[in-house]
Amino acid sequence: MMFNDFKLIGDRPVYIQVKDYLQKMIAQGGLLADQKLPSTRELSELLHVSRNTVIAAYTSLEDEGFIYTIRGKGSFAAAVIPARRCHEPSHDLKLDWKQRLSGTAQLADELDLMKRGIRAAKGTISFTSIAPDEKLFDLDQVKRAFLDRMSIEGDVLLNYGYAKGYKPLMEYLLQYMENKGVNVSGKDLLITNGFTEGFELVLSALQKRHGTVLCENPTHNTAIKNLKLHGYDITGIEMESDGICLDKVEQALQEQSFDFAFLIPSYHNPTGIVMSPEKRVKLIELMTAYQIPIVEDGFNEELRYSGAHVAPLIASAGASNNVVYIGSFSKVLFPGIRVGWILADHELIYYLESIKRARSIHTSTLDQSLLYQYLLNGNLDKYLKRARAEYKRKYEWTKQCIEEHIPCKRVSGDGGLHVFVEFEQGFKTRELLKMCSERGVIFTPGDNFYTDGTGQHTMRLGFSRVADEDISQGIRIIGQAAAQLMG
Amino acid sequence: MMFNDFKLIGDRPVYIQVKDYLQKMIAQGGLLADQKLPSTRELSELLHVSRNTVIAAYTSLEDEGFIYTIRGKGSFAAAVIPARRCHEPSHDLKLDWKQRLSGTAQLADELDLMKRGIRAAKGTISFTSIAPDEKLFDLDQVKRAFLDRMSIEGDVLLNYGYAKGYKPLMEYLLQYMENKGVNVSGKDLLITNGFTEGFELVLSALQKRHGTVLCENPTHNTAIKNLKLHGYDITGIEMESDGICLDKVEQALQEQSFDFAFLIPSYHNPTGIVMSPEKRVKLIELMTAYQIPIVEDGFNEELRYSGAHVAPLIASAGASNNVVYIGSFSKVLFPGIRVGWILADHELIYYLESIKRARSIHTSTLDQSLLYQYLLNGNLDKYLKRARAEYKRKYEWTKQCIEEHIPCKRVSGDGGLHVFVEFEQGFKTRELLKMCSERGVIFTPGDNFYTDGTGQHTMRLGFSRVADEDISQGIRIIGQAAAQLMG
Repeated sequence: MMFNDFKLIGDRPVYIQVKDYLQKMIAQGGLLADQKLPSTRELSELLHVSRNTVIAAYTSLEDEGFIYTIRGKGSFAAAVIPARRCHEPSHDLKLDWKQRLSGTAQLADELDLMKRGIRAAKGTISFTSIAPDEKLFDLDQVKRAFLDRMSIEGDVLLNYGYAKGYKPLMEYLLQYMENKGVNVSGKDLLITNGFTEGFELVLSALQKRHGTVLCENPTHNTAIKNLKLHGYDITGIEMESDGICLDKVEQALQEQSFDFAFLIPSYHNPTGIVMSPEKRVKLIELMTAYQIPIVEDGFNEELRYSGAHVAPLIASAGASNNVVYIGSFSKVLFPGIRVGWILADHELIYYLESIKRARSIHTSTLDQSLLYQYLLNGNLDKYLKRARAEYKRKYEWTKQCIEEHIPCKRVSGDGGLHVFVEFEQGFKTRELLKMCSERGVIFTPGDNFYTDGTGQHTMRLGFSRVADEDISQGIRIIGQAAAQLMG
Repeated sequence: MMFNDFKLIGDRPVYIQVKDYLQKMIAQGGLLADQKLPSTRELSELLHVSRNTVIAAYTSLEDEGFIYTIRGKGSFAAAVIPARRCHEPSHDLKLDWKQRLSGTAQLADELDLMKRGIRAAKGTISFTSIAPDEKLFDLDQVKRAFLDRMSIEGDVLLNYGYAKGYKPLMEYLLQYMENKGVNVSGKDLLITNGFTEGFELVLSALQKRHGTVLCENPTHNTAIKNLKLHGYDITGIEMESDGICLDKVEQALQEQSFDFAFLIPSYHNPTGIVMSPEKRVKLIELMTAYQIPIVEDGFNEELRYSGAHVAPLIASAGASNNVVYIGSFSKVLFPGIRVGWILADHELIYYLESIKRARSIHTSTLDQSLLYQYLLNGNLDKYLKRARAEYKRKYEWTKQCIEEHIPCKRVSGDGGLHVFVEFEQGFKTRELLKMCSERGVIFTPGDNFYTDGTGQHTMRLGFSRVADEDISQGIRIIGQAAAQLMG
């Protein structure tokens, strides 16, 4: 019998559920064109809903053109050809999409670590995430910021915005960067869907002259992926405890031409190292001498746990226009809100604006305005104070546990949401991962971050979302397995 | 004297303003390293703020590493080297970014109509927008949806999500498409930052075999731009009153190979034409015979003003997997929320997911969840009913005014937020635009939408955001200018 498979689910207006049910039936050919529908009274009995509900559903279906009504005769299914009927003979075209994929699609899949990672079973202690701990989120302030902004200009926020970004946020961020010591004259700002879109836009805007990029080794794995997707050869320069090795940088610059350098000077991913002030000055001088643009990733800058403020490279560069700074609050505040920014020479931004428009029109005005109001209300300082205290505690706890349990050569990291562990050369953290995952603990093998296939003896431990007792237990398990592997 | 340029602005905590002021001074070298700051009492007098405010500001500055305190001696500026000091000798590097731009950057700028359009002076009557009328937005329901969702899982929403999309929204949209008659088996869905990102992802995923695309002529100008940015040659097929001319399609298919077809079957942009059910069936048969994938733009589908529901091509294609449907609520609901979706063969989606992740990690979970809750609460039906009634009224008013005032050959459009006007061949709407803009009226010249440089005798009039009296006045002015031009 018809209409006997109707089931109500909670939290959705009942008349809409009745309407959806009938609409699907009509659209898929379960009710044929001009077939009479039950009267509202009949259907209300069949579906066990009120008659008013059925009337509302029929009215809505008529509005949408799925049924028509003849006064005194009742309602009838409209001819919603040409949705294909199930019983029609089938000449279905089955394309082999694999044969039609671009190199980009294939490479993006190949380099997609999220598809290749070990899936954490329930109860697994996972050190793979460097996302913030959502328990720290001040939801009430987020709600307040949203409601504040909606009251001021809700209608504007929900309509189209500008490719460059939401003006009040742009002005706020320009000021924010000025407060970090950046000389903003001659520079301009573009809002992006987080760091990743920002980096993608810059990669699309730059001419590939030599097809070569210089960066730290190891470095941010998403950056490696996107550089490879754009066909760049990557020269990774080894890290020292105070940042990239300048002698090796100079040597590389003498031997080869580079299109640009990609650098993470503060709380570097994955090593957590902060480049020293002295190195920053010398690095800028070197890059100036060789006329090399720098793309600076400032993603973690705010998560400093001790010491003086260190200005970003774009501040050290003064009035120079060769640093392209990409910022984001994704690690600091809320990753679910996809907002980042590029601060760079105004001429470059002028072109980036057009690529941004072609790629995604503009970044969600809702997200931008919510973030703006949240910042304007003075929440960042309070949140950072709380978040820093908590992450610093966890960071120290993690380091202490590692020292106690893991027979490693070095632990690095001065801030941020992770530490980086190096074993002796020859040790294989992928073998360690295999053992640990069988014992319910996973982490990120460090070779993911290396530009040259090395780093097999390293691993990254993200602690931001791991509970204290899991940190100690997980690290103990890793330590035991490592000791076993070492024999 | 120092500290005399401090000015308070409203709506931002005062201590943050004091902190920002001092931070900038320190970061930019206005206060040197180890220079003593005024006591909290002194500064509170200098800045005319409370002493507690200054104490809070100093505490925050110390947290951020901009100052340090010696007990009993006071607070001192930290050494925030290496932000460049204004008075240091300058060896600034000035790169010529224009010399370093990719072809993509240059072409994106060239094809960027937003940069080239006539700027509307204040008071101008503008028919250029096809954005929704924000007066129709039901802000209270949007707020409610946000608060509902935040209460349920605010912490989850603000943290990282998945590249494919926010699960509840994906399931909702899959059901939504099924209710339009789509056979979803073997298909999958990916959430994007609106139609434009969706189209971009598809263009990046498809292999360029012949470098040729077939589409309606005229067609959506953003699609033309992005096809050109990807290096495609475009074959535009002329439109008839019931959609693309099938004879010409067949002829083109016989003469040439195409990588895919880009089509807007419902409320076509810019002509507003709806492809007839019969044509849809035949078109699908043709494309099946020639093994051509179809990229379907469903952007305007919901803005139907009369007649029966017309199913999208992907519904007509039944179990075939050759239609890639890109949907969006940007024209129907809120463009400020950048959410669209791709419904296509599951294998294609598998690869698109990796490109999406490489491009922008994922679409804002906040936007997705707000949209989901808004839809779940049953608002779309109510909103559409109201919006359709209003737009239909404006649409009919616009058509009536055109018939009365504009000496044109044809007006097309069966729904949506605009009408398309054709004059006799030889008439130049760009000349008309020049005259009209001097008289305070602007519109979009139709040649923007043509794939082959023709269409000089056409124009698009968007009416959604123009008040009734401005519609009549604007169209009268256009009509007078047109009559003048015709001599």
